[in-house]
Amino acid sequence: MADGAFGVRPGEIAADLPATFDAGLHFIGRLRTPWHERAACPKNGLQTQETCTVEVDPAYAPALSHVTGCTHLILLYWMDRATRGLLVQRPRHADGPRGTFSLRSPARPNPIALSVVELLGRDGDRLSVRGLDCLDGTPLLDIKPYYASTDSRPDAQVDRAGAAR
Amino acid sequence: MADGAFGVRPGEIAADLPATFDAGLHFIGRLRTPWHERAACPKNGLQTQETCTVEVDPAYAPALSHVTGCTHLILLYWMDRATRGLLVQRPRHADGPRGTFSLRSPARPNPIALSVVELLGRDGDRLSVRGLDCLDGTPLLDIKPYYASTDSRPDAQVDRAGAAR
Repeated sequence: MADGAFGVRPGEIAADLPATFDAGLHFIGRLRTPWHERAACPKNGLQTQETCTVEVDPAYAPALSHVTGCTHLILLYWMDRATRGLLVQRPRHADGPRGTFSLRSPARPNPIALSVVELLGRDGDRLSVRGLDCLDGTPLLDIKPYYASTDSRPDAQVDRAGAAR
Repeated sequence: MADGAFGVRPGEIAADLPATFDAGLHFIGRLRTPWHERAACPKNGLQTQETCTVEVDPAYAPALSHVTGCTHLILLYWMDRATRGLLVQRPRHADGPRGTFSLRSPARPNPIALSVVELLGRDGDRLSVRGLDCLDGTPLLDIKPYYASTDSRPDAQVDRAGAAR
């Protein structure tokens, strides 16, 4: 069982992941942030006002056309330093183990992270954004327009105690 | 250049994707929906009241612990039938070509789709949800709790004409 840089703690459960993959990803750019180690990263993207940079590889830059029509974007990126395949985790903020799918932890079978960011501007193949919390150099997977009509659920709730409904 | 089931239209631009992948994905389950062809799918998940089913592979079921504490979830899934690598597209609703990163089209370098769904209930390794718009059998990549505090931006706007700000 892989024991990555983020570690597996007592009481946690890791998956016995298949030896082969079902699909493959292309890294399409990098996220440039002020944070170079995990402890320095903000807890989430709203806890910082830092401007970060989305560097899109020149080969993919044509796909940025019209992106400045969006006030907010969804960024998908690859948590390449996370322990992969953790199914049950013991977050520090919780009173016991939690299933990975009830957490936003980077450690998961497919370590794809998602952030909603405010688009501040574009300069060629670079976007200035606010709302990232990840490590400098994190590989970028996708950029999507954020639609309030389908993506915004202001009344959504998470019971951190995990009480079943 | 691959010309997949969703096709490349005149005026569109496809990427010359690298021959190798940078990272790999495990399919962790399937989405069960009432729609078996693209033309039958709703335009988005809010245009239907259909209850759909998230089938999580038994190997990953422990990761569902405490997920019922969430009223809403983010599902990431793999658009396995989409033309991959389209950079500029001509959507029917637009007056001209648009960059892929300004669109929610399934055709993109990494065809990962995202839907915010309402969680209706859990039965073992199956979740009942409302808000999906994809084809039956679509491969599942990830399940995340939806946090209104960081994921909801009710004031976000998209200028479909793509006017630069």
